[in-house]
Amino acid sequence: MAKDYFQDHMPENVCYGCGASNPQGLQIKSYWEGEEALLDWESQEKYHGWADLMNGGIMATLIDCHCMGAAMAYAYKVEDRSMDSHPEYRYATGSMNIKYLKPTPNRKVHLRAKITEVKGKKTVVWCDFYSDEGVKTAEAEVIAIRVFDGSQAAGTNAFKS
Amino acid sequence: MAKDYFQDHMPENVCYGCGASNPQGLQIKSYWEGEEALLDWESQEKYHGWADLMNGGIMATLIDCHCMGAAMAYAYKVEDRSMDSHPEYRYATGSMNIKYLKPTPNRKVHLRAKITEVKGKKTVVWCDFYSDEGVKTAEAEVIAIRVFDGSQAAGTNAFKS
Repeated sequence: MAKDYFQDHMPENVCYGCGASNPQGLQIKSYWEGEEALLDWESQEKYHGWADLMNGGIMATLIDCHCMGAAMAYAYKVEDRSMDSHPEYRYATGSMNIKYLKPTPNRKVHLRAKITEVKGKKTVVWCDFYSDEGVKTAEAEVIAIRVFDGSQAAGTNAFKS
Repeated sequence: MAKDYFQDHMPENVCYGCGASNPQGLQIKSYWEGEEALLDWESQEKYHGWADLMNGGIMATLIDCHCMGAAMAYAYKVEDRSMDSHPEYRYATGSMNIKYLKPTPNRKVHLRAKITEVKGKKTVVWCDFYSDEGVKTAEAEVIAIRVFDGSQAAGTNAFKS
């Protein structure tokens, strides 16, 4: 079955990390597997830090955008409606706390995120970061803030505002 | 007086954030102003998150590499010797805790970092992040770990190892 990627429901998103409309960006694609939001991403040589190891900032970019996507997708999921339906919800990062546990080879990586708390506009997301060999190399807690709620702004597009 | 940039003392550094030898990277340049390590950096359109606002992951990349540079430069400073002298010290990120306070315009930004603690191989760095208008838009605590100490590996180059 074709995966239903969160980012395919963000029209005109130009974000460096997750925007399908940013041809020079990382273009991540996140999807649900049960209660977990998954991201599989393949790096390029230029994104290394130390030679052959993934840059920590690029890892942070993946974590950030993947967790924002997970927070958004979860908001629609609990309301049992499509990510294309209204009202439209969008999230921005409130904080991000990353622990780098081991060097990450600069190749394919896999992120698994889950929602641990929702309170008002705040969604807390936990994210584990794995090398392609299945070694956990980083973990993060990210707080997403709902900054756009289309129910107060019918007919607009968050990414154009 | 010409600034003495930390990154000019990291030969063959290919890092996406701070490597002078990565033509596709962010190529940051950090320097001392008294007790603070400063970074002035000008963004490009592709590094936005929301249109016209800087991507949070790119901000994290700047913070990460600037703080690693500051930790390294500080280690030489306290020993009162040039960053080109031996033994050679290099740092990697142990953890990074970023709070995003306000949206950051995707133009010029300015980072100010200071060392708050050194304990064994661990250096704690605090970093404030400002827009070009002087508004503080983010702050971070970053823990740098000394992962390479040339006194145990004479004649090698950390970035080639």
